[in-house]
Amino acid sequence: MSKPVDNAVSTVRVRTYIQNHRAAFLDDLAEWLRIPSVSAQPDHAADVRRSADWLAAKLRETGFPAVEVWATDGAPAVFAHWPSEDPDAPTVLVYGHHDVQPAGREDGWDTEPFEPVIRGNRLHARGAADDKGQVFFHTLGVRAHLAATGRTAPAVHLKLLVEGEEESGSPHFRDLVEARAERLAADAVIVSDTGMWSEDTPTVCTGMRGLAECEIELYGPDQDIHSGSFGGAVPNPATAVARLVAALHDEHARVAVPGFYEGITELTDRERELFAELPFDESQWLRTARSTALHGEAGHTTLERVWARPTAEVNGIGGGYQGPGSKTIIPSSAMVKLSFRLVAGQEPDLVEKAVRAWVAEQVPAGIRHEITFGAATRPCLTPLEHPALQSVVRAMSRAFEQPVHFPREGGSGPAADLQEVLGAPVLFLGISVPSDGWHAPNEKVEIDLLLKGVETAAHLWGDLAESWREAH
Amino acid sequence: MSKPVDNAVSTVRVRTYIQNHRAAFLDDLAEWLRIPSVSAQPDHAADVRRSADWLAAKLRETGFPAVEVWATDGAPAVFAHWPSEDPDAPTVLVYGHHDVQPAGREDGWDTEPFEPVIRGNRLHARGAADDKGQVFFHTLGVRAHLAATGRTAPAVHLKLLVEGEEESGSPHFRDLVEARAERLAADAVIVSDTGMWSEDTPTVCTGMRGLAECEIELYGPDQDIHSGSFGGAVPNPATAVARLVAALHDEHARVAVPGFYEGITELTDRERELFAELPFDESQWLRTARSTALHGEAGHTTLERVWARPTAEVNGIGGGYQGPGSKTIIPSSAMVKLSFRLVAGQEPDLVEKAVRAWVAEQVPAGIRHEITFGAATRPCLTPLEHPALQSVVRAMSRAFEQPVHFPREGGSGPAADLQEVLGAPVLFLGISVPSDGWHAPNEKVEIDLLLKGVETAAHLWGDLAESWREAH
Repeated sequence: MSKPVDNAVSTVRVRTYIQNHRAAFLDDLAEWLRIPSVSAQPDHAADVRRSADWLAAKLRETGFPAVEVWATDGAPAVFAHWPSEDPDAPTVLVYGHHDVQPAGREDGWDTEPFEPVIRGNRLHARGAADDKGQVFFHTLGVRAHLAATGRTAPAVHLKLLVEGEEESGSPHFRDLVEARAERLAADAVIVSDTGMWSEDTPTVCTGMRGLAECEIELYGPDQDIHSGSFGGAVPNPATAVARLVAALHDEHARVAVPGFYEGITELTDRERELFAELPFDESQWLRTARSTALHGEAGHTTLERVWARPTAEVNGIGGGYQGPGSKTIIPSSAMVKLSFRLVAGQEPDLVEKAVRAWVAEQVPAGIRHEITFGAATRPCLTPLEHPALQSVVRAMSRAFEQPVHFPREGGSGPAADLQEVLGAPVLFLGISVPSDGWHAPNEKVEIDLLLKGVETAAHLWGDLAESWREAH
Repeated sequence: MSKPVDNAVSTVRVRTYIQNHRAAFLDDLAEWLRIPSVSAQPDHAADVRRSADWLAAKLRETGFPAVEVWATDGAPAVFAHWPSEDPDAPTVLVYGHHDVQPAGREDGWDTEPFEPVIRGNRLHARGAADDKGQVFFHTLGVRAHLAATGRTAPAVHLKLLVEGEEESGSPHFRDLVEARAERLAADAVIVSDTGMWSEDTPTVCTGMRGLAECEIELYGPDQDIHSGSFGGAVPNPATAVARLVAALHDEHARVAVPGFYEGITELTDRERELFAELPFDESQWLRTARSTALHGEAGHTTLERVWARPTAEVNGIGGGYQGPGSKTIIPSSAMVKLSFRLVAGQEPDLVEKAVRAWVAEQVPAGIRHEITFGAATRPCLTPLEHPALQSVVRAMSRAFEQPVHFPREGGSGPAADLQEVLGAPVLFLGISVPSDGWHAPNEKVEIDLLLKGVETAAHLWGDLAESWREAH
């Protein structure tokens, strides 16, 4: 409706507002962090529900006119909607989660995981970064947006969906999104459940890899047989599973399943340049990977390999005798669990089909096989030139007063379901850093970065509304 | 001393003696079989000792002038010695074992495993064939030998060594043999712990394969890491173990470890012919192997592969997540247990050295490895033309009134320790058949064959003494 105020003025207003409300914001977040909403532990089911109720109440207090707790067959999600006064404004859906990983003092925490403490610039508690802190910055963010612009409603139709089962693999999320697709309808999805490169390097993630998983069982003799009496003369399923896995990659460490790379969106030169601009420190990366050497697809850098190239990894392999000492058998069966990370352009169904055909061809005579695929997660990727991505970048640059870089995420997440069901691009706005200790003891969030997240959100809605108006 | 009596007369005398003592012989064996001498079960330690004492008493009763129960760090062995009256006679050591595999009615036995029953021509009980029956035929055998020849002592210096831990892997056997090497000294070793091809086809085994076993651990990241964050960019030890195993055989199913085949004694054309003469039924063999296809070293028949060719088999493989569902990790380690069957001419030490060198060369950068080898068992092989083997063949042919064939045994056994420590050739005299159900429910021995074993032993000592005299 109204032309946004001058950027410099707006920045001062946002920062002043945040400064004035910082203490209350941190107090509120600490209150939420005290609720041990561990979705993986049935004991904490009531806490997860309490966490949803607490958040719903806080969102109402923030000003969201419509706030609902949505039951699922598992833990509840929270949905909130604050329409813009401009009916033509774009609709934005923010995604996060209010459940947390398990945590106990005995795991190596210096303090009680559900008793938040501030030490220096850090707020320590389970969920401080993953994901309560990153959900919660949107509450102060939207208030700062209103205060700085003099609005009574956000510049965009703002929706929040905060699920309660992300740490348990989001088993009911897809169903929920499909059932509520109309309520969730949006022009863009903002995921606040990732991080940035480092304290010094603000980044906006532009995509996540997808995931297809299978288990392959190979059956040989119909019981374990004596390796002396029969060894050397019948097929051994443990050898067969090993040969199958060995054939999975060629000599360039490329996946050797025919058709696997078909249709993938290759990195552009510009994207490769942008990856290369990141301050990548190989020895630091190897420390994080707890590994001593790099190994991957020829012709690609490490960052390209983990962010933009599909993979085939063995997650587990087993067969025969694994106890102490020896047992002279040819085992009757062996199995391998494989996971394939997928990139934009790969269809999980086609990957499954290609893998099934390849396995059937590899398995030798005398060995019977079975393959089971689990539910797949699609990859998601937002083009660099997407206007909504540019808005996130501008908002973040203003908050951080630094240029923003463009990494991706090697993992896979429910964001892909939102992209697919809602047909909206997915953007990532996260301020967590690698040292935050997700899923680890002494999880923390950097308070300065958390407030930069508030500030980014405060700038984002006006920018998005503006660029949307220009484009339509 | 005295020239053996005419063969036909001797055969009649032996058979008459056996016929007259058959009932008492079977009663005695049944009494021994009632002792549940299960060496693998600590509960039965007293029974194993009782079994040794029972046998020692029976051997004294048989006429052995020197019988001793030898303690070990585990279960006791029984040693007996009956010197010939001819000081120049050869010394023969008979090997067997008095311990048995575990057995319980609940495993599928039709009757109590330690309550022997005779059904038709079969004596059912745990240990009937493996190995009490085959040890025990030597008692009646030596008596029949004396009765038929009018001797008061055997034609050879006859020694028996009956160990009590064979079914537990003979953990103290090598030490025992080394410590008692002087008492055990022999010109030939007769092992009565194997079998023959079938009821219709008497055979003398001419060799056993040796065994070298190792476990290879491969270490990657120093803990399991996320396959999304790191997949595609670091070495995966489960993939590495699979590639190692896949590289173990070439496209002809030959072991690809350099030097593995070095020095092996190749089959002669005559030996291949003799194997080929055996009535081998492929589909029957596959049923026994519980397999649906043959697979092995190119250029060799199934019998050659299991009896006369060295092998590398995976006994167990493992790494990463093997539970239900999926876990998106790159595992920190993986392992494989390999066993190598060895044939004459292969030195276990050299095989170990070759495998270690090969593994070190195969393991990729970023993966650390450890190999542990267990104690090896040497192969043993008696040349077809060995005079003692010819004696066994003649004795067996007389008992069975049929030509004798020459198989080998694919498995490995403590016989090789006797061969190595005592420096004596090892010969195999066994009358068990594949249907006897070693280690399985309803183990039995064919009574007719058991008595053929008695008869063979009764003929053997005179023949051996004779051919020894001729050769020296």
